[in-house]
Amino acid sequence: MKLQLINPNTTAAMTDKMAVAARQVVSVGTQILAVQSATGPASIETAVDEALALPGLLAQIKAGEAAGVDAHVIACFGDPGLRAARELATAPVIGIAEAAMQMACLVASSFSVVTTLARTVPTAQRLLVDYGMTSRCRRVRATGIAVLELEAQTSDLLRKKIGDECRLALAEDGVGAIVLGCAGMADLCTELTQALGVPVIDGVTAAVKLAEALAGLGLRTSKQGDYARPGAKPYVGVMAQFAPAA
Amino acid sequence: MKLQLINPNTTAAMTDKMAVAARQVVSVGTQILAVQSATGPASIETAVDEALALPGLLAQIKAGEAAGVDAHVIACFGDPGLRAARELATAPVIGIAEAAMQMACLVASSFSVVTTLARTVPTAQRLLVDYGMTSRCRRVRATGIAVLELEAQTSDLLRKKIGDECRLALAEDGVGAIVLGCAGMADLCTELTQALGVPVIDGVTAAVKLAEALAGLGLRTSKQGDYARPGAKPYVGVMAQFAPAA
Amino acid sequence: MKLQLINPNTTAAMTDKMAVAARQVVSVGTQILAVQSATGPASIETAVDEALALPGLLAQIKAGEAAGVDAHVIACFGDPGLRAARELATAPVIGIAEAAMQMACLVASSFSVVTTLARTVPTAQRLLVDYGMTSRCRRVRATGIAVLELEAQTSDLLRKKIGDECRLALAEDGVGAIVLGCAGMADLCTELTQALGVPVIDGVTAAVKLAEALAGLGLRTSKQGDYARPGAKPYVGVMAQFAPAA
Amino acid sequence: MKLQLINPNTTAAMTDKMAVAARQVVSVGTQILAVQSATGPASIETAVDEALALPGLLAQIKAGEAAGVDAHVIACFGDPGLRAARELATAPVIGIAEAAMQMACLVASSFSVVTTLARTVPTAQRLLVDYGMTSRCRRVRATGIAVLELEAQTSDLLRKKIGDECRLALAEDGVGAIVLGCAGMADLCTELTQALGVPVIDGVTAAVKLAEALAGLGLRTSKQGDYARPGAKPYVGVMAQFAPAA
Amino acid sequence: MKLQLINPNTTAAMTDKMAVAARQVVSVGTQILAVQSATGPASIETAVDEALALPGLLAQIKAGEAAGVDAHVIACFGDPGLRAARELATAPVIGIAEAAMQMACLVASSFSVVTTLARTVPTAQRLLVDYGMTSRCRRVRATGIAVLELEAQTSDLLRKKIGDECRLALAEDGVGAIVLGCAGMADLCTELTQALGVPVIDGVTAAVKLAEALAGLGLRTSKQGDYARPGAKPYVGVMAQFAPAA
Amino acid sequence: MKLQLINPNTTAAMTDKMAVAARQVVSVGTQILAVQSATGPASIETAVDEALALPGLLAQIKAGEAAGVDAHVIACFGDPGLRAARELATAPVIGIAEAAMQMACLVASSFSVVTTLARTVPTAQRLLVDYGMTSRCRRVRATGIAVLELEAQTSDLLRKKIGDECRLALAEDGVGAIVLGCAGMADLCTELTQALGVPVIDGVTAAVKLAEALAGLGLRTSKQGDYARPGAKPYVGVMAQFAPAA
Repeated sequence: MKLQLINPNTTAAMTDKMAVAARQVVSVGTQILAVQSATGPASIETAVDEALALPGLLAQIKAGEAAGVDAHVIACFGDPGLRAARELATAPVIGIAEAAMQMACLVASSFSVVTTLARTVPTAQRLLVDYGMTSRCRRVRATGIAVLELEAQTSDLLRKKIGDECRLALAEDGVGAIVLGCAGMADLCTELTQALGVPVIDGVTAAVKLAEALAGLGLRTSKQGDYARPGAKPYVGVMAQFAPAA
Repeated sequence: MKLQLINPNTTAAMTDKMAVAARQVVSVGTQILAVQSATGPASIETAVDEALALPGLLAQIKAGEAAGVDAHVIACFGDPGLRAARELATAPVIGIAEAAMQMACLVASSFSVVTTLARTVPTAQRLLVDYGMTSRCRRVRATGIAVLELEAQTSDLLRKKIGDECRLALAEDGVGAIVLGCAGMADLCTELTQALGVPVIDGVTAAVKLAEALAGLGLRTSKQGDYARPGAKPYVGVMAQFAPAA
Repeated sequence: MKLQLINPNTTAAMTDKMAVAARQVVSVGTQILAVQSATGPASIETAVDEALALPGLLAQIKAGEAAGVDAHVIACFGDPGLRAARELATAPVIGIAEAAMQMACLVASSFSVVTTLARTVPTAQRLLVDYGMTSRCRRVRATGIAVLELEAQTSDLLRKKIGDECRLALAEDGVGAIVLGCAGMADLCTELTQALGVPVIDGVTAAVKLAEALAGLGLRTSKQGDYARPGAKPYVGVMAQFAPAA
Repeated sequence: MKLQLINPNTTAAMTDKMAVAARQVVSVGTQILAVQSATGPASIETAVDEALALPGLLAQIKAGEAAGVDAHVIACFGDPGLRAARELATAPVIGIAEAAMQMACLVASSFSVVTTLARTVPTAQRLLVDYGMTSRCRRVRATGIAVLELEAQTSDLLRKKIGDECRLALAEDGVGAIVLGCAGMADLCTELTQALGVPVIDGVTAAVKLAEALAGLGLRTSKQGDYARPGAKPYVGVMAQFAPAA
Repeated sequence: MKLQLINPNTTAAMTDKMAVAARQVVSVGTQILAVQSATGPASIETAVDEALALPGLLAQIKAGEAAGVDAHVIACFGDPGLRAARELATAPVIGIAEAAMQMACLVASSFSVVTTLARTVPTAQRLLVDYGMTSRCRRVRATGIAVLELEAQTSDLLRKKIGDECRLALAEDGVGAIVLGCAGMADLCTELTQALGVPVIDGVTAAVKLAEALAGLGLRTSKQGDYARPGAKPYVGVMAQFAPAA
Repeated sequence: MKLQLINPNTTAAMTDKMAVAARQVVSVGTQILAVQSATGPASIETAVDEALALPGLLAQIKAGEAAGVDAHVIACFGDPGLRAARELATAPVIGIAEAAMQMACLVASSFSVVTTLARTVPTAQRLLVDYGMTSRCRRVRATGIAVLELEAQTSDLLRKKIGDECRLALAEDGVGAIVLGCAGMADLCTELTQALGVPVIDGVTAAVKLAEALAGLGLRTSKQGDYARPGAKPYVGVMAQFAPAA
């Protein structure tokens, strides 16, 4: 199967990092097409960033559909544009936050999220409400790390910072698992699992395996109900280039 | 005060219609600047429409801030981009759905929403959850009317369709008020109130009066917490023109 | 417009204080009729106080209706008797807690309430549930100040106490706005807003501006549904004088 | 034990009816003191009725405390004044709606309420929220019977009307028990249980037995927390006579 | 009346302890049949314990029904097998957690639970959700005491430990009552109530009095709806002996 | 990987049916060990059935752990014993209801469940609450088919009955996907998907693919928190044979 892994920010180094993590978990025969948005912010940390990331993200969804991919993964922990992407796609579209949270629920009765800036916490909390996870997630913990600090390989300093916050979560929140709250932490998952002795879940790899699972079941995005394909209508200005195909 | 009324779709006729409604309720001294997005969809009915409307909407927010407006109203019942707009603005930003629902709660213990296409119902329902209104709103009722059918003055046929749905709401839902679920219905509010004998609330005029109220209290968007101004970061491609000012 | 501002306790000095605050924010042409209950407790801090405040409050609603006021404001942060008052009135009736919370939601994604005695916290929390604000309000904070300590102009000592609690709220609760939890704090709103750099919302002035907004839209209390006028029935003893007019 | 059964409306015939029902279920040694409010409405069906019933009800609580009763029952399905009464009392105070709903939960996984006028349904629904019963109660069903129609022995016509609504509840709501939504239906409980073959629960008798249970356990209203006794403060006018004892 | 008090673990000393507590509160004429499961764990602290306790518990329910008891009490704070027991029984079945929580709500606006091992906290929290008590219970507090430490009379050391946790609950949680979270604490209820000056509620005695109350009202488990008697079907192996009677 | 597929009832024909479905979706290298409980009910439709199925189910979990399987699937839509199983296992344990609901959320914004007897509906509804799916599942629909009617290959008559209910769900509930509410419907998934044109999700195959996904990520049941391994304690009688290994 062909799986499009979309980094919805415009930072190519981060795309590469995710792709490495994704390729380490794929089944035989799964091909990862790692791409990033051609337009938009270098990282997604605010509602403005998210809003301006959407056109580039949707363009990638359209491109992937045209290329016949079997699934899309949106690799940003805020799951930006998930509903819009599902309207455009017939292949399944998986957000890494939803994927990580689902996986966490299968191996622990509760989890905490360890994420980047405090600024992003409310976004995670809205997702928890939306996904029905408020009673499973005990706390969303910010580390104060900006997304772009995780652009390349994670430094020892930041590894320590993230590991320390995970340890605090285990000590104070009474949880059985940790969800990593940024695609840029994908390279830490294995070592943290070993160090902490509990499941540590990275959304990128979780989403890749869920995409394979859906593909294996032949499940595709429903085109009946809320994710039905939008009808054609006039789009004006630069947005016209991103509009759904007629 | 100077109030920017933003139609976040690109249909100028609809902007004019809203402006007429807004100007009928303003206090002495309030000036309405009615604008629409320069880029984006002709109407907002799907998640894709909403996503692609955001850059143009945010550009208007930036423009309004630069022009020193005292408040912004986002005149689409899905309240698109409300969080992002509040990040960019120091003036208050009011969505017409939130405004209409708040007003309805002050004059009735429950209300129903009468809206356009069935397609838009889930968006309204998500707003109800977000605004804590699930126990106050009994039902969101679709009329099957597309937004652009309401572009110019509402036809007699559509007036009847909307009025009939309102009557059904009163008969079946046990509510004390009706909220109109589209900015394009702003011209029907007065006649429906008279015909139905209950408060019928249009979000455009509700938002305009709330904006005046906030201005009268000197209240502006909090720059502490979630609506803090986004820091500068690289934006790539056509999105760079919509990015927050440095 | 003629707006009846009702202090539902029997302390005239507090009525005067509210009236001053109200008159500072009214639009040209709005007349404030400030009154207090003729019977009942000197302040409202317990369920017993609230229960025994209701007859006097409803008598004022009746009097105001007879006098043809355009709106009523119930100026006690517990919003006592709001449903009963709306049954009796055709003019809109606004409680200052509901008003303040609505305004806070328009300028901040979350707020904390700073109120008087710990005793009153559960009342505020029940209102939060009733108004759908539980996810917007992070915390209700008691200062330990009795309502009657705020009877006249607020002393420097109490100003400091209240200001300190507001600062704690900003530091610990992560909120973007403060709601003042007592009508007796109405004189502190402007200075606290300036001192704290975030929106500080007083319910008295918020309610007054909402009342003007409703009047400007021609919205009146729905007489269909839960707020329908009660039918006549026998009332016995001293309560007969407070009963709804036949 | 001495149990004060308070009819919070002023209709003595209804008090008598309740007392008969209560005396049929008491244990040996339990004495029922059946009283009604000396001031207030003849029946409680609206928020205004409830507000104006509170002073008379609280006066009875005070009188019962002075007389040393072991428990109080407030015999109106809206549980009016329950919090205020608990502030005044050291003996337990039980509302008949809370009592009936608790009992229903012990013998059925879900129940419906069959009540009087549609007007009273929202009150019952607010109690369901307050008591955490929203998932246990499937529906609150109005029969259109005014409370005073149930003043004396229930007529055959009304028995049939109520029985029919109970049958509808069983057929349509999938519930295992019926809760009768008015103290005036206390005389129907036994015959309906036999006719319907499911538990039919009347709040008056349920509350009496709960009061005996609490007394048997030596449990009294907590004077720590929200039900602490209110401190003395000035009460003005006719309300002074109802105020808590110094 | 004949009341079967079932200890669903296999530790007879604990049964004796509960029986003593139960007999201290029964009315004249109530006979306590205290029994324990013949098969299963010595104490119930995990989901595995609970699962393996169920066959023995259900066998006791069957035996009690055959013996014509008037009510069953399941005396373990996790209310294990309550739904299954109600399917098998026509007499009422009361769990001690549900009983204690109901009683607490009648005498205090909020309570905390003081229980045994931290391991059992999530079970109590699931019950709170199931019983609609999440807003009434402020906290479930573990003392770290294993259930079997409470097998015989509670030692002075453990009395102190439990008393201290109750005091912490009052000091930190702002509650008006304490619920004891283990049947093995039944002997502490009276002394703790006196020492703490607030209602302290033990589920065993609470359930016994509720059982008497239900019996006094003639209420029995509904056989319509979810608690209908299971039809006969093949049961294989050792489980056949526990299966519902044909 | 070695995946233990546990049918927690004692009907071997149903085990075979599930195994066929499971083997159709496994990846290369996944081995399905299909087993059923040695003791317990022939089908699980009531709380009593579930209670008496647990010992046999847990025995299989123990056996699978001893055999070193990489994951367990509990193949009954009530997800019986899931928490207890996770306490016993270090391999992941997946319930088919949780699996199916998770998959449904990835391809549709809402779904309905089509299940067997009305009797089983409350169990499904409790799972929806537990899994945070109440806002995603619009309705649980019973077909009136007993589980054992689905023991062998599903008859044409029952296929039609189930298909018709699915069509009703799509027509009336406005959902985008169907979840099949019984492991015995696993053979219908593909044909229903084709016939209905929307995703139809069977829990057995969904769980198998999720198990592979978890294995691919190296995720195992957390032994910290609620799923920690139970300590040894005395188990009496026939239950001793099912107790956790020392």
